[in-house]
Amino acid sequence: MTTVPDKERLLAQVGFVVEIDKLKRVLRRNTLMDGSRRENDAEHSWHLGMLAMVFAEYAPADVDLARVTSMLLVHDIVEIDAGDTFIYDLTEVEVQEKAERAAADRIFGLLPEDQTVTLRALWDEFEERTTPEARFAKAIDRLAPIMANYNSEGGSWVRHGVTADQVMEKVEIIREGSPALAVYATEIVESSVVRGHLAPGRG
Amino acid sequence: MTTVPDKERLLAQVGFVVEIDKLKRVLRRNTLMDGSRRENDAEHSWHLGMLAMVFAEYAPADVDLARVTSMLLVHDIVEIDAGDTFIYDLTEVEVQEKAERAAADRIFGLLPEDQTVTLRALWDEFEERTTPEARFAKAIDRLAPIMANYNSEGGSWVRHGVTADQVMEKVEIIREGSPALAVYATEIVESSVVRGHLAPGRG
Repeated sequence: MTTVPDKERLLAQVGFVVEIDKLKRVLRRNTLMDGSRRENDAEHSWHLGMLAMVFAEYAPADVDLARVTSMLLVHDIVEIDAGDTFIYDLTEVEVQEKAERAAADRIFGLLPEDQTVTLRALWDEFEERTTPEARFAKAIDRLAPIMANYNSEGGSWVRHGVTADQVMEKVEIIREGSPALAVYATEIVESSVVRGHLAPGRG
Repeated sequence: MTTVPDKERLLAQVGFVVEIDKLKRVLRRNTLMDGSRRENDAEHSWHLGMLAMVFAEYAPADVDLARVTSMLLVHDIVEIDAGDTFIYDLTEVEVQEKAERAAADRIFGLLPEDQTVTLRALWDEFEERTTPEARFAKAIDRLAPIMANYNSEGGSWVRHGVTADQVMEKVEIIREGSPALAVYATEIVESSVVRGHLAPGRG
């Protein structure tokens, strides 16, 4: 019979897996596309993984898509401790960064040391956006709420009075990772202004 | 300025991405590990993707982990039409298979044809369990609810009067994909019987 090679190691991995179950309870500002309730970070991360798969052809050539997917599955885990940040609130974003680093230390630190290093490196890579993989992953992460708001009559844009200029700043981040997806996002923004779901210019 | 190479293609992909948002509303029998509410298929699929990453070392040598992860992200999408099946209800399982194939036809069929084929092949591979990747993915899928029930005082085992023998049949499926994880799952089953969260033998 096969035995578990290292029980202590396995139990550390199980402890991490149990801990990150909490990501299912971290709520985001946007709703599901049908508007029925707020979206949580775990189901959001699944959706991003699927977007990366479906939109893979719009990534730069030679991008390692497996690493993109891994980054997307991991990137919100720090919000178990640090909570969700509304990306249009700049004050909150600065305070948030420190809290997220502390969260990364604690949560990835539950894993065996080699895996702590690997997952932390994935999270750092996503945050730093210096590789094509990280830029494409971030583009997917920025595109998803734009698509969600477009498909739920303006969603959190309407509720929080977000303007087209503010969303276009996010579209520039999409452009760094995927010019083609930025073209599509720009069309959504223009169409949302016409529909009255996004205030034109600065609020 | 970059243009979207094929607008019709992109819109089919967007249609699929919007459609699968519904997976966030398909509820499973088990709860979150804290017992606060039932788990949905989308967040469950995210969790499985993370388990595959963390437990990768217990996969057979030379397994393509990226394909394992893709399978796990895709495998429940058919439940948007076909609903969740309780794996201990065999009658329901048979009826379900036909409904799931029809769902796969419809939902993957929303994509451009080449991607319909790719994602359908991933789903078929997972269901058929003839490759090491599919067997490891299925092992992860079977392990997760066992871990969730163990960490929520028996969870759906207690609510539905599931017996140790029934869970051990699922452990045999885990063993096909990962002998090491089957050893761990067996320990959970034995411990759950001792704790009174799982009825010994047949119910």
